[in-house]
Amino acid sequence: MTTNNTQPARGTRDFLPDDVRRREFVVGVVRSVYERYGFEPLETPAFENIETLLGKYGEEGNQLIFKILKRGEHEASGQADLALRYDLTVPLARVVAQYQAQLPKFFKRYQIQPVWRADRPARGRFREFYQCDIDSVGSTSPVVEAEVLSAVSEVLARLGFSDFVIRLNHRRVLSALLDTSGVAEALHGEALVALDKLDKIGPDGVTKELAARGIDAGASARLLKAFAGGDDVMAALSTELGSHEAGTLAVAELATIVSLSESTAAAGRIRIDPSLARGLSYYTGAIMEIAVPDLAGSLGGGGRYDNLVGMFLGREVPACGFSLGLERILVVMGERNMFPPEIAHGAIDVTVTLWNDDARGDALALAGELRAAGLRVDVYPESDKLGKQFKYAASRHVPFVAIVGDDEQAKGEVAFKDLASGEQQSVRRADAPSFVAARLRALKGEHS
Amino acid sequence: MTTNNTQPARGTRDFLPDDVRRREFVVGVVRSVYERYGFEPLETPAFENIETLLGKYGEEGNQLIFKILKRGEHEASGQADLALRYDLTVPLARVVAQYQAQLPKFFKRYQIQPVWRADRPARGRFREFYQCDIDSVGSTSPVVEAEVLSAVSEVLARLGFSDFVIRLNHRRVLSALLDTSGVAEALHGEALVALDKLDKIGPDGVTKELAARGIDAGASARLLKAFAGGDDVMAALSTELGSHEAGTLAVAELATIVSLSESTAAAGRIRIDPSLARGLSYYTGAIMEIAVPDLAGSLGGGGRYDNLVGMFLGREVPACGFSLGLERILVVMGERNMFPPEIAHGAIDVTVTLWNDDARGDALALAGELRAAGLRVDVYPESDKLGKQFKYAASRHVPFVAIVGDDEQAKGEVAFKDLASGEQQSVRRADAPSFVAARLRALKGEHS
Repeated sequence: MTTNNTQPARGTRDFLPDDVRRREFVVGVVRSVYERYGFEPLETPAFENIETLLGKYGEEGNQLIFKILKRGEHEASGQADLALRYDLTVPLARVVAQYQAQLPKFFKRYQIQPVWRADRPARGRFREFYQCDIDSVGSTSPVVEAEVLSAVSEVLARLGFSDFVIRLNHRRVLSALLDTSGVAEALHGEALVALDKLDKIGPDGVTKELAARGIDAGASARLLKAFAGGDDVMAALSTELGSHEAGTLAVAELATIVSLSESTAAAGRIRIDPSLARGLSYYTGAIMEIAVPDLAGSLGGGGRYDNLVGMFLGREVPACGFSLGLERILVVMGERNMFPPEIAHGAIDVTVTLWNDDARGDALALAGELRAAGLRVDVYPESDKLGKQFKYAASRHVPFVAIVGDDEQAKGEVAFKDLASGEQQSVRRADAPSFVAARLRALKGEHS
Repeated sequence: MTTNNTQPARGTRDFLPDDVRRREFVVGVVRSVYERYGFEPLETPAFENIETLLGKYGEEGNQLIFKILKRGEHEASGQADLALRYDLTVPLARVVAQYQAQLPKFFKRYQIQPVWRADRPARGRFREFYQCDIDSVGSTSPVVEAEVLSAVSEVLARLGFSDFVIRLNHRRVLSALLDTSGVAEALHGEALVALDKLDKIGPDGVTKELAARGIDAGASARLLKAFAGGDDVMAALSTELGSHEAGTLAVAELATIVSLSESTAAAGRIRIDPSLARGLSYYTGAIMEIAVPDLAGSLGGGGRYDNLVGMFLGREVPACGFSLGLERILVVMGERNMFPPEIAHGAIDVTVTLWNDDARGDALALAGELRAAGLRVDVYPESDKLGKQFKYAASRHVPFVAIVGDDEQAKGEVAFKDLASGEQQSVRRADAPSFVAARLRALKGEHS
C-alpha cells in the first residue's frame, strides 16, 4: 500500500461534477414530489452507537456493518463502539422512540442519505450508496399504502419512466396460500425462500427447490398453481382462500388498496402478484416492488411493517414505507438517455475573457452584472491570448464568451461570441445581461 | 449500555424536519451563488483508505480521525484500514491527482459534505459537522482571490448578513514583519502561535507570551507596533517593509486583491489585518477570515495554499479556497431570527380530511388535483371525527383543511376552512386548486 494510491476506497465512488448534477437532478425530483405528499425531511448521523445496529439485520447483516474503532487510549483494544448507518429504517425507529413527544401522531418522513455495507463490490453494488426512503408512521389505514404507491409512481413518472409496473402482494395472503396448499407452518420460511426465486429459476426450479426443502409434491403443486395467476388474480385468490379467514381479510385489504389507487397516480400501474415474497422477515401486511422491463431486480420496494418501528419503544407502531433505489434509477436513466441535455454540460453560461491585466477589475465587474441576472459566469483568471481563452471555454462546453477589448471599452460595449457558430455581436454594456439571457433561452429552445 | 439508549451517538445530532429545512435553506443559497460563480459540485466518499488521511493533519489530527475496523476474518486483529473524511481538502487533492486528465485546467469546485472528528464535544462543537468549501485550483492569478472573496460575500449578503467584515492578510507579509522586527527565522513558528492569540489575550498578553517563547523584548515591541495598524494599514506596511523584497511583493499582492475586489460583491468589506495568522502550516499567500460582531471566532476562512493540492502528484498545484462554517452560520441566523417564516412551519398547505371510509378514494383524488397545482397536501388517513382532524392539522401549522361532506359531494364542491380564522368557504371542485393557491399567496403576503 502506497500513499500514492489516489483511487477512492474499494466499493466507493467519487462523484465528479457531471455525476453530482445527474444525482441532484433525480434527488430534486424525489424531494419535490415527496414534499407535495406531505412527507417531511429527516436526517440522522452517519454513525450510530454500535449496539443500536448490532442484532438488527441478522447474522449476515452484522458481518456487513462497518465498525468504528474506539479512540485514544482505547484504540489499542481493537474494540469498536460506533458503526456506520446500514439502512434508514433502524435510525427512523430510534428517532421515533427518542422524539415521540415532538413528532406528529402521523409521522411521514422522507430520508435521502448514504448507507454503508461491507458487501463484496460488484457491478452496480457499492459499499457506499444512497437510499431514498419514505415511511408513514402511526396509522394502519390503507390510505397510507395508497398514498405511498401514488407518491412513488409520481416520482417515476416525473423522471420520465412510462413503463413501470407495481407488483403488489400481502404477507398474510402468502401465509394463507401456504396454509391452504398444505405447507406446514414450520416449513413456511423454507417455502418462502424457494418461492422468492420464482422470477429467476421458474416453476420447475422452484418445484425442485421446494422438494429439497422438505415440502411434499402435492403441496408444492397446489402452491405453484395458485401463483400461476390467470386473467383475474384477485378472483382466483378469493376462491382459493374463501375458507381461510385471515387470508380472506388480507385479500380484501389488497382489493381496497387497488381500488383506492385508482384515484391516484398509481392508477393502472398495479399488478397483484401472489408470488412476490421480498425479505419477509419484518413485513406484516401489503408488500410491493416496482419493476421496469430492462432491469433485472427492482427500482425499489416496500410494504407495511407494524412491528419494527416500535422496536426501541417496546410496543407496536404501525408503519408503511417504500425505498427507491437511487443508484438503479440512475443506471437505467443513463442507459436510456433520460437526463435533460443541459445537465451533462451546462455548468457555465458565459466565460468573461481577460483582455489584459489592467482589464481585470472591469472583467470582474462585468461578471457581477451578468450574475445579478442569474447567469452562471466564469472569469478566465489569466491574461492569456484570446484564442487560448476561447479554446478553454469551448472545451468546457460554455456557449458564450464575453470580450471587452479596447474598442468595446471605448464604446461602452461588450462583445459576445457564440462559440458554436463563431458569430460575434456587440451590445451596449447595460443590455449585456438581457442579451445573453435571451440568447441562452433561444439555444435551449433549439435543443428541446 | 443498553439497547434502549435512543440518543444519537455522542457529539452527533438528529435533524428533525424543521432543522433539515433550515439547513437546506442555507445550503440552497450557498449552492446557487457558487454555481453562478462557475464553481462545480464535487462529492467524495465518507471514508478513505486510512493511509490517504494519516499524517496529513499532524499528530493531533491523527488522534481525531475516526478509524474503521477491518472486516470479516481480519476484524479480530483490531486493525483499521479505512478512516472517515476529516476535511474536504485532502479528498480534493486526491481527486485532482486521480482525474487530472478529465478535470479542466482551472478546476473550480464546491463541496458541501459532512466531516467527522473525534473532538471532545462542546457547545457548538460536534463530531459530525458539515463543511462548505470552494476551491479554485490551477491559477496563481489574484483574480482567483477576488472571485473567492466575492462569492463568499454574496452568499452572506443573500443569507441576510449585512455586518460582516473580511479580515485579509498575507502569509509572506507576516513572515516579513517577523524578519523586520528582528525575530529570528527559527522562532517564526513560536511567534505566530503567540500572535494568533492577539484577539483573545490582547497586546499585553501577547507580549508576555512572546517573552515566554524566547523572543526578545525589542523584537516583540516592534512586532506589536506593526500590528497596531492605524488609519492606513497598507501605507504603514509599505513603509515598514520597504526594504524587504518578499514583503514588498506580498504587500503589492494584497493591494491588487483589494483593488480588484472594489469591482465585486466584496467591495467595502475588506479590512487588512496584519495580525491575522490562521493555521499557517499550509497557507502560502493571501489568508482571509470573515467575522461578525456577535460571534467569537469566524464564519469561515481560507486562503492561498500552493503546495497542498499537489501532495499526491508530487508537484506544486496552485490553489486558493474558502471554507464557510455552515454550523456557525446556522447558529447566528437562528439567534438573529434570520430564517424566512415559512421555513419553520410550512411543510403542508392543505390537509384533506376524511368524511368517512367511502370518501377515501375521492379524498385521494382531490389531493392529487391540489398537488398537480404544486400544493403540498396531506390526506388525513383515518375517518376520525372532523374536529379531531382539524385539531391535528392545526397542531401541524397547516393553514387550510379541505372537506368534502355529503353536501359538498352532491353540489360538486369542496369546502376549505382557514384554521387560523375559522372562516369556511365552498368552491367548485374545478376551482379548488387555484382558490387555495391564491389564498396561500395572500397569507404569505400578510407575513412578509
